[in-house]
Amino acid sequence: MTLPRIAIDAMGGDEGVRTIVAGVALARRRHEGLRFILFGDEAQIQDALGHHPNLSRAAEIVHTDRVVAATDKPSQAIRQSRGSSMGLAIQAVKNGDAMAAVSAGNTGALMAMAKLALRTLPGIDRPALAAFLPTLGDNDVVMLDLGANTECDARNLVQFAIMGAAYARVVLDLETPRVRLLNIGTEELKGTDEIRDAAAFLRTASGLPLRFDGFIEGDRIGSGDADVIVSEGFAGNIALKTAEGTARFVTDVLRRAFTSSLRSKAGFLLSKPALHLLKVHLDPNNHNGAVFLGLNGMVVKSHGGADEKGIANAVHVAARLVEADLAARIAGDMARVGPILSEEMIAK
Amino acid sequence: MTLPRIAIDAMGGDEGVRTIVAGVALARRRHEGLRFILFGDEAQIQDALGHHPNLSRAAEIVHTDRVVAATDKPSQAIRQSRGSSMGLAIQAVKNGDAMAAVSAGNTGALMAMAKLALRTLPGIDRPALAAFLPTLGDNDVVMLDLGANTECDARNLVQFAIMGAAYARVVLDLETPRVRLLNIGTEELKGTDEIRDAAAFLRTASGLPLRFDGFIEGDRIGSGDADVIVSEGFAGNIALKTAEGTARFVTDVLRRAFTSSLRSKAGFLLSKPALHLLKVHLDPNNHNGAVFLGLNGMVVKSHGGADEKGIANAVHVAARLVEADLAARIAGDMARVGPILSEEMIAK
Repeated sequence: MTLPRIAIDAMGGDEGVRTIVAGVALARRRHEGLRFILFGDEAQIQDALGHHPNLSRAAEIVHTDRVVAATDKPSQAIRQSRGSSMGLAIQAVKNGDAMAAVSAGNTGALMAMAKLALRTLPGIDRPALAAFLPTLGDNDVVMLDLGANTECDARNLVQFAIMGAAYARVVLDLETPRVRLLNIGTEELKGTDEIRDAAAFLRTASGLPLRFDGFIEGDRIGSGDADVIVSEGFAGNIALKTAEGTARFVTDVLRRAFTSSLRSKAGFLLSKPALHLLKVHLDPNNHNGAVFLGLNGMVVKSHGGADEKGIANAVHVAARLVEADLAARIAGDMARVGPILSEEMIAK
Repeated sequence: MTLPRIAIDAMGGDEGVRTIVAGVALARRRHEGLRFILFGDEAQIQDALGHHPNLSRAAEIVHTDRVVAATDKPSQAIRQSRGSSMGLAIQAVKNGDAMAAVSAGNTGALMAMAKLALRTLPGIDRPALAAFLPTLGDNDVVMLDLGANTECDARNLVQFAIMGAAYARVVLDLETPRVRLLNIGTEELKGTDEIRDAAAFLRTASGLPLRFDGFIEGDRIGSGDADVIVSEGFAGNIALKTAEGTARFVTDVLRRAFTSSLRSKAGFLLSKPALHLLKVHLDPNNHNGAVFLGLNGMVVKSHGGADEKGIANAVHVAARLVEADLAARIAGDMARVGPILSEEMIAK
């Protein structure tokens, strides 16, 4: 029997081939039943694999010297870089050579190439970028879209809600995820027409495998009040980045405070385990790996600046999706709700 | 000589008349040269003033039993509540009875009533809600719009940049504030058409009293890289609330971590001064008081849930604006750049 394989863009990201290969090797330890295809410069990959015999046995290399640059426009990437490490990784998913692709490269190019090669699932107009964020509740929260779509209509937002709920059902093992729309207030009249229309649909539609709980404001994202938070990609990206930035800001202020007096320094030493817990909880590397939902195939985007542990997390996300057969489950959900969606939303 | 007066909506906010009056009394200590007109239920205000003889001597009461409810739509508020405590406070600014108004009530209603009564400055199409946020740099950063306008065109964004720069010049005492547009990436091609068009104008326009430094992402809001951050109101509000929520989230995680072991508890006790500094730095009450920029008159919005200290801060913001004659200075800036703005933006 052939083991399921994951395609890796070994050239994407800011940290270089060694970090990516090291991250994949780390992930491989948790997923012994997977194999990997590494796309990129053969000599560099071979060299990096030398340090990871465990991965080496489970990996093959496909050489290319073409790389999508961080500054390439999506249209350039599509035209010029079909044979790039990123393009080949996506192509491997399309051809069935791999069950999922992981890249830490240029987000816009990855989105455009994935959409063109894999096409959206029936009933989905646009894919969305989804990730898990930490909360004070029992579970992480799925948030989407995180920047793939800067302008969305009500129909897009409803589709995101359904895709996000499918993702939460699979990964968080929830029967009926609680879904909310990100908004600037919780009253029904708040926000843009698109958000109000999406809310009106979600409030009244029956048969959706989710529970719509209305709006949520930015200050409640980490509260644990929702399993899925839906937003258009501009505000979603701003929220994600602002949360990351604020967490770093707070820890910086804290570090300064702790080094301001001898007494504080002593407190700091005693508090190290507590602060370590905070660091682990907030480290974006521990939450790395955003998924493009809504495509005929699994593509996971890693932070460009992810370290070895971050890459491992993104690969782990891909591995779980492969093991849970997420694409088929989202397609199943969409097939169930697709007719409701088209009839009711056209009737509006 | 009559002392300058500030109009207070004594009925707005979630904490009741006593908190508002106590906050005004606290602010009055820093601004002995100001007087206050308190609009609302006379008996309740009189009762609250009993605890603050210092304010009592510097305040007069204008009775009304009409109050704008938190759930009123802006259109309702305008129709039904002209004689409300909020409406009368704004009217006092219009009539010249007060130099500024402060309310902790319904934001949408406050915006609509202020715009209708005070009108926008020449050259300004829409007012924007601006506030200071803490940074790791030497100064706070002015951020606008924080939720007054959910959809903005390039022209609005450029006007916000100019108003925000005027605000930073007055309050932060900066000659040429560094202005950035909030976006989902820093490359020129990122974001919506509106943002790219506004950036193109700001990049090339000469004679503006600001330095345009391009785009900024959500994770750099508190970095100190900018003096003014401009956004349409939806994403601006989401960013502001997400930052508040994340700061609270981090301190909650920290509290849990500190109570998880005896060693941590000891560390916590020793670290109290450091943690207190963090709390002071992050407490939204210490940054309370958002200003509607671009009106013929000063209106300051307090958080609905602000405590006594928060109200005092909002009144302090209003007092500084009155003392610095901000409205006239923004009007002066707009008169200078208005012609550039209209010619160049129409030429596009």
